Amino acid sequence: MIQTKLIPRTAEAYEPPMLIKTLLAQSLRYEPQREIVYRDLFRINYVQFNQRVRQLANVLAEVGVKPGDTVAVLDWDSHRYLECFFGVTSVGAILHTVNIRLSPAQILYTMNHAEDKVVLIHEDFLPLLTAVKDQLTTVETYILLSDKVYTNTIDTQPGVEIPVGFSGEYEALLKAASPEYEFPDFDENTWATSFYTTGTTGNPKGVYFSHRQLFLHTMGLLTYLIGYEALPFKSRTDVYMPITPMFHVHAWGFPFLATLMSAKQVYPGKYEPEMLCKLIVTEGVTLSHCVPTILNMLVNSPAAQKFRDNLSRWSVLIGGSALTKGLAKAALDLGINISAGYGMSETAPILSVVYLNEEERALSLDDQIDFRVRAGRIAPFVEARLMNEDGQFVSHDGQSLGEIVVRTPWTTQGYYNDPERGADLWRGGWLHTGDVASITPDNWIMVADRTKDVIKTGGEWVSSLDMENVLSQVEGVAESAVIGLPDDRWGERPHALIVQKPGYNLTAEGIKNGLKAKVDQGELHKWYVPDRILFVSEIPKTSVGKIDKKRIRSEMKDQILS
Amino acid sequence: MIQTKLIPRTAEAYEPPMLIKTLLAQSLRYEPQREIVYRDLFRINYVQFNQRVRQLANVLAEVGVKPGDTVAVLDWDSHRYLECFFGVTSVGAILHTVNIRLSPAQILYTMNHAEDKVVLIHEDFLPLLTAVKDQLTTVETYILLSDKVYTNTIDTQPGVEIPVGFSGEYEALLKAASPEYEFPDFDENTWATSFYTTGTTGNPKGVYFSHRQLFLHTMGLLTYLIGYEALPFKSRTDVYMPITPMFHVHAWGFPFLATLMSAKQVYPGKYEPEMLCKLIVTEGVTLSHCVPTILNMLVNSPAAQKFRDNLSRWSVLIGGSALTKGLAKAALDLGINISAGYGMSETAPILSVVYLNEEERALSLDDQIDFRVRAGRIAPFVEARLMNEDGQFVSHDGQSLGEIVVRTPWTTQGYYNDPERGADLWRGGWLHTGDVASITPDNWIMVADRTKDVIKTGGEWVSSLDMENVLSQVEGVAESAVIGLPDDRWGERPHALIVQKPGYNLTAEGIKNGLKAKVDQGELHKWYVPDRILFVSEIPKTSVGKIDKKRIRSEMKDQILS
Repeated sequence: MIQTKLIPRTAEAYEPPMLIKTLLAQSLRYEPQREIVYRDLFRINYVQFNQRVRQLANVLAEVGVKPGDTVAVLDWDSHRYLECFFGVTSVGAILHTVNIRLSPAQILYTMNHAEDKVVLIHEDFLPLLTAVKDQLTTVETYILLSDKVYTNTIDTQPGVEIPVGFSGEYEALLKAASPEYEFPDFDENTWATSFYTTGTTGNPKGVYFSHRQLFLHTMGLLTYLIGYEALPFKSRTDVYMPITPMFHVHAWGFPFLATLMSAKQVYPGKYEPEMLCKLIVTEGVTLSHCVPTILNMLVNSPAAQKFRDNLSRWSVLIGGSALTKGLAKAALDLGINISAGYGMSETAPILSVVYLNEEERALSLDDQIDFRVRAGRIAPFVEARLMNEDGQFVSHDGQSLGEIVVRTPWTTQGYYNDPERGADLWRGGWLHTGDVASITPDNWIMVADRTKDVIKTGGEWVSSLDMENVLSQVEGVAESAVIGLPDDRWGERPHALIVQKPGYNLTAEGIKNGLKAKVDQGELHKWYVPDRILFVSEIPKTSVGKIDKKRIRSEMKDQILS
Repeated sequence: MIQTKLIPRTAEAYEPPMLIKTLLAQSLRYEPQREIVYRDLFRINYVQFNQRVRQLANVLAEVGVKPGDTVAVLDWDSHRYLECFFGVTSVGAILHTVNIRLSPAQILYTMNHAEDKVVLIHEDFLPLLTAVKDQLTTVETYILLSDKVYTNTIDTQPGVEIPVGFSGEYEALLKAASPEYEFPDFDENTWATSFYTTGTTGNPKGVYFSHRQLFLHTMGLLTYLIGYEALPFKSRTDVYMPITPMFHVHAWGFPFLATLMSAKQVYPGKYEPEMLCKLIVTEGVTLSHCVPTILNMLVNSPAAQKFRDNLSRWSVLIGGSALTKGLAKAALDLGINISAGYGMSETAPILSVVYLNEEERALSLDDQIDFRVRAGRIAPFVEARLMNEDGQFVSHDGQSLGEIVVRTPWTTQGYYNDPERGADLWRGGWLHTGDVASITPDNWIMVADRTKDVIKTGGEWVSSLDMENVLSQVEGVAESAVIGLPDDRWGERPHALIVQKPGYNLTAEGIKNGLKAKVDQGELHKWYVPDRILFVSEIPKTSVGKIDKKRIRSEMKDQILS
């Protein structure tokens, strides 16, 4: 960084740090009567919410939480979780949002690795806790979260039993605590949150974010969603409900934005299709975000047609994995305003969101689909580049492929207690996403592949996903997988596995001829055409149903090359 | 500040600073075809604008500007000025926006005090420059700004003569410079801008702002104006034009917001009623800000009725001095969406802007006037308190008066090279505004007086302005001035000067009896009633037409108390 002249400061002059409490404070100022709703069980306005966040701060102090301590939460999406987003962080403690979808052994690993001191846990996870409790090395006490208290009177709490080692039940503790608490100022680089992300190998990796990072991520969302209207979000009329879990990258940071704007928020608890549909209708939800699987489930549910009128006011940001054109069309046909986005745990997560410029907005909805399923345009304040294997930047011409590397004001600065993988993430001063893409001159990120699946052949990169898309359009192909295997001359060459539809008799020769015709017509680069095509009855998949290219490369190599 | 745990950082990890170039970068991303217009002379889109800002950066390097150097601008509101907002600051230099309304002696003082090295000056100010040039101690070169180049061909520049000591004319220099320039990263606390503010005594005071401060001020405006819709500003349809000068607190920071949003911007040059009206109509201006005087001029101009349709799409933020209900009504009757705000040079400037909550928006326009003329509700990220003479905070009950003291992420951290007045500004760690107000529980700032004019009597504060308002409603009173004078028992007591309307025969006794009746009806605190009322033919005024209370207190003290 170059040397410049900094502003001089008078001894007593003060410049406040950008903290999560700064976002919270605005929710009391202008429209404090707006509501935060939990399922069909509980509702509070922002005045009550702010009181409860302060009561939580007092409860945390009572159970021994000090600045720098880690407080873990295991809960479904709830107002309580939102209170922890603000209360735990604003006393200077670290919020560990435990990924409850991991295996018990992984959860145990993350809780010990994060050095959780106090744990807030929903009663649904008590069996899990019982299984690992003896091996938790740093936890000093627990607080019980129970939905039963909203259906009974909190005073008596019939049906809520406080297990041994617990400090009490959340609502009862809050009720007994003072609603007065002055959140202190502290360094904006203070550690605010942590959570763990899993890869295909090794232990889960802990990412972490500071107050400043979460504040600026909120400003980025505000600039893009509200300022540029990438997604419509008018705090006066819109109602927000997350459908990606709050433990997963803070529900993509939306709860911070919704609270800053004192918008009405709805928290659905455990994701149950009926409850989700009911809340969308009765609470008038207009903005959500989810993975394609959830959208698919909702679009195909019998309720979707019934609630058509409500769905047509609903905007949904899709991320986590690629949005197919078919699903996008089904959603748009229901009137759902659907857009994709791209990001990752390490990037808090927003890197890009679909933004239709004036020209693209003028297109018919059908013509917009091509744009709406993209990974999006680079988000405000994000710097995204493409890097080749030599660490050189690749041109943003919409053609050249490279690994997406980024610098943003909200990226994890490493992995907790894992210097080696942290250094690899940040090699060369850019965060490496592990995704291969092209970038168009007008800032669309076109994700092509994972770096480990992209095929490097003769200095060119071949996207295995693009090639699979081409094969999927061949008559008679039910499914395909394209992988790279070593080649003496070209470094690597693409090879394909194909599952035929019943009744077809495809040949490798026939398919190759079809692909060569595309090459002749300029629709396909010639180096994309697979060297070999192997017909198989089944394509190896991972436990979550993704094509297991690693296994194909290692186990099927000889079979393919034979 | 309390001690917390900061996020750990991997050696190569990078977190970008918040700089003015960060705002600029977004203007190229999403809607770069939108325009920036200068009078009826010149228009460019954001692609061209970004090129020109980089050309300017190269020109600055050529004339010897280094990081930390000060570059002064004397210009009317123009695209050139906007280019300097971004270009001068983004090379790490300091932009001094010279207040061209000061006297030549004061301008000379500020340019020497700021240590201006390079000066960009509009030809209209060359006579001024001739008068002071010999006494400028730090200036090394000048660049000429001329509007003639837009009406001739820039190549030949007939009519543009380059004076001795000048490096050239702006457009010609830009044209010869490369449009390639990579703006470097540097510390976000880098000094970005300076300008001077005058008080009743002493030399002008230099305030200054960092990149971080101007970035966060923009985020505050974004949250409030666009997020909360305090003023409507949709970048897709709105067109911005400043009518408070760019040298005055960066035109209230709006150009930074408009550029971030790549909104269409219109710069009117020298403020001429005809040109302003013409631009509002032909360019479709929908958002401006100005002082009441300018609004008054426009509302009462013959053009106003003619351009009614255009004015009814126009939102205007009013600040600088109080907006009267009469002017607000006249503007609202024309369909102009008018709101007041409050701030000062030291605060970059936004402290509060009128925000009508859901309840207040439901009122009729006439009933909204009471709210719209207020100083506004405390703006996002601003902390505002009331402080009494003992340095204690006063309750926000809408009644109690105190000096407004603030902490915001965008306040000057002192006065340049003026430690004494800087320390006074920041005494006790709060920036002292010198304004007395009450604050309502729902965050309205109700400005009552300047601290030096408020009357301290028996532990209570009396707003001289409030008392003058009461007197103005007495039949037969043409004008009044209320001041505090020393009193043995109460510290101070209010006294009034009154000018009678012709044909009236008011008496002090009669007026006091009327005021006492108000006290009995609970409409007035009894300590507000002036001890003495003196009838005068004229009330002393300052050169700008404000009541000169300082002079009244010193010169008329004996006459009043006699």
